Parts: sequence; C-alpha cells; structure tokens
Amino acid sequence: MQLYNYFRSSASFRVRIALQIKGLAYDYLPVHLVKGEHKAPEYASRIGDALVPTLVTDGGTALSQSMAIIEYLDETHPTPALLPGTPLARARVRALAQMVACEIHPLNNLRVLKYLVRDLKVDEDAKNAWYRHWVRSGLEAFERQLALLAQERAAQGLAPSVLCWGDTPTLADCCLVPQIFNGQRFNVNMDGMPLTMGAFEACMALPAFQQAQPSACPDFEA
Amino acid sequence: MQLYNYFRSSASFRVRIALQIKGLAYDYLPVHLVKGEHKAPEYASRIGDALVPTLVTDGGTALSQSMAIIEYLDETHPTPALLPGTPLARARVRALAQMVACEIHPLNNLRVLKYLVRDLKVDEDAKNAWYRHWVRSGLEAFERQLALLAQERAAQGLAPSVLCWGDTPTLADCCLVPQIFNGQRFNVNMDGMPLTMGAFEACMALPAFQQAQPSACPDFEA
Repeated sequence: MQLYNYFRSSASFRVRIALQIKGLAYDYLPVHLVKGEHKAPEYASRIGDALVPTLVTDGGTALSQSMAIIEYLDETHPTPALLPGTPLARARVRALAQMVACEIHPLNNLRVLKYLVRDLKVDEDAKNAWYRHWVRSGLEAFERQLALLAQERAAQGLAPSVLCWGDTPTLADCCLVPQIFNGQRFNVNMDGMPLTMGAFEACMALPAFQQAQPSACPDFEA
Repeated sequence: MQLYNYFRSSASFRVRIALQIKGLAYDYLPVHLVKGEHKAPEYASRIGDALVPTLVTDGGTALSQSMAIIEYLDETHPTPALLPGTPLARARVRALAQMVACEIHPLNNLRVLKYLVRDLKVDEDAKNAWYRHWVRSGLEAFERQLALLAQERAAQGLAPSVLCWGDTPTLADCCLVPQIFNGQRFNVNMDGMPLTMGAFEACMALPAFQQAQPSACPDFEA
C-alpha cells in the first residue's frame, strides 16, 4: 500500500496510527500541503477533493477521507480491531471520532485559516482565537461525552475506559490524538479535561502512536 | 425510537432520511436550534455535544452524530442496506458522505455563522460569500469524485450510478440531499454539476426523501 500524506496533517496522522496499530507496511509518499503539492495535476486528478491522506490499495485503488480509509483497513485487516464488537459500542466510538472529525478539525485546517486571513482580513490574534475557540469548545464537549460514557460503562458493569473506549485503541483514539497535537501546537488550554487528556497520554505510551507522530515522519520539519 | 431533531438541521435531515428508507417509526421530538433549546439542561445533560440529532434507542440509549447513528441503524436494521456489500464500495460511499459531513457542512452550521458575525464582525455579504464558497467548492470536489467513480464503475463493467453510488440510496445520499437543500436556501450556484444534481433529483423522486424533507416536518416554519 501507499499513503500520500503530510507529516502535520491531522487526517493523515489518523491513518498512520491505524496502519501502525495493524502492523501494515506502506510506502510513505509526502505531499507538501503548504507548498500546494496536493494541487498538482498528477495528484489532484486522482482524487476528487485533492486532500490528504490518500491510501492507494495494493490493487491500485485510491481511497480518500481518513475515517473511511480506517474503516476500510479495519474491514480488510480485522485484527487488532479498531471498532468494538457490538452495534451500540461501535456507534459510541464512531460518534467520538466524528466529534473530532466533523466538529473540530474542519474549522481549523489550512484552507480555512487561509480564507480567514486572505478573504475575511482576519488578523493573527483573531485567527488564533478562532482556532483555540473551536478546539477548546469541541474538546470540552468531547470530555462531557467521555464522562457520560464512563457513567454508562459503570452502570453496565464494564471497567472504566483507559483510552477513549475501553483499553485498546479505536477509531476514536486515531482521531483524538492528532487533534490534541494540533491543539498543543496552537497553545490551546487543555486544563480540566482529565478523561480526554488521560486517553491521549495512554495512547502516546503505545509504540503505534509514537511511530505515527509527525516528528517520526520522513518529511518532518521542526 | 425517538429522534430529537430540528426541521432545518442538515444532520437531523440525514437521519430522518435513513429512518424513512428503513421504514422505522419514531417519535419526532423538536429541538428549536435558533431558540437555543439544545442548550437547555434537560437536553444538554444527555449528550456531550448538545447538538441535534440525538436518536434515543428503544433501550433508552441516547446516540449522537448523524453518520454514527445511520451506521447503527444500518447494522441493527440491515434491510434495505444503506452501505454496499464490499469493503471497497463501502469505503467509496463513506468517503462521499464524509466529503459532505467533514468538508462542507461543518463550516456552515449555525454556531459557525454566529461566530463569524458576533466575534469576527463579518457583515451579511461576507457571511453569505463564506457560506457559498464552502458549499460550492465542496460540491465541485464531490462532482469530480462522482466523475472518477463513474470511470471506475465503467472499467469494472458496473452500470452507471443513478444515485451517488449505484441505484439504491446509501449513506452518501443521506448526506448529499440535505446539503443541497441548505445550499439552495443560500442561493448557491449549482450549475455544472450534472452527476451531483442528477443524484439529488433521483433521490428527491423517492418517497423516503420527500417524507423526510424539512417542509414535511411537524416543526417546519416557512
């Protein structure tokens, strides 16, 4: 398999984590977003949204959208599983992943920040305030949801979660961890979110997450 | 089942379509977003992000995030299926859904438009330009992806898609149709997107989509 990705792209990072957890080898093909390499015709012509990541399967099919890619990897390489075994638990994990991927990250990616500056003439301080607002408020919601899930698990006699859901990594952790990295880069206040940060730290103790992080990528720039 | 939702909410509309397609009865519980009813403690205390929709299962569990809810409904009520039968085709459909739910809709929901006006002091024209920019550019990417998928299907000897993928509704159609409704409300130019608008129109010829549309909701306001 081949993964077109960028070390700092949060969505790319999600897929790198999934590939590492499953122990799947892949060719790392860097696409420098800041230099606009994703808009070059040889890349953009293969994938409708011309974003990263793109996973090219062994059969040569180019797949887009990080959560869809991770579900594909989970269906085609089921062990270790990135989704739990029951429909209700899968709904919990997918919803946590989507709280990051649909509510937080879309507001803060490169093209949105560019629009704020170039089209809305937003200054640096207001841009950073925008960024921090959506990360902080989104993670506060995430924390509330983890607290509700902790109650639910306790009522069902399940052990408290160590990661986002249970004690093995799921799609939710694949999405949360890159979001925390991004938030830390913009100095978002992470105080008062013990369940969220606890899950993050437990993930980062695992080799798969360490190996997938931006600083471990071949195209990393300090 | 109960569905907390709002007639104009795009994410609510997605779930209503799925429930109609599967012929599942539910209690319609309106939550008036513009009046801020989603922030009332009795609602907000049940769900971390306090957004709509929330599906309450027959067992009393409150599920959030529209795509996660639709996957749950598809797993627990498999017929008619909202995802195709192979991992690769499922990845295609999920990616189309996420092109709407992760790239277009998050930039244009009520709280984001409020932030633009209240915090960034953006005027009405610039707010509308923002809205139209993300819908138009997102749907152009969607159209390019449908064109790539049409080539792929032809190469595999599959019939051309009538809807987003194939000729029966999928998760992708559940996401696309509400986005087109929203775009039309803001007078987004939909010219030059024959595959996307063809799928939309084919969906809207189906009773399930008609019955789920905002104007058919009990809380509809013209």
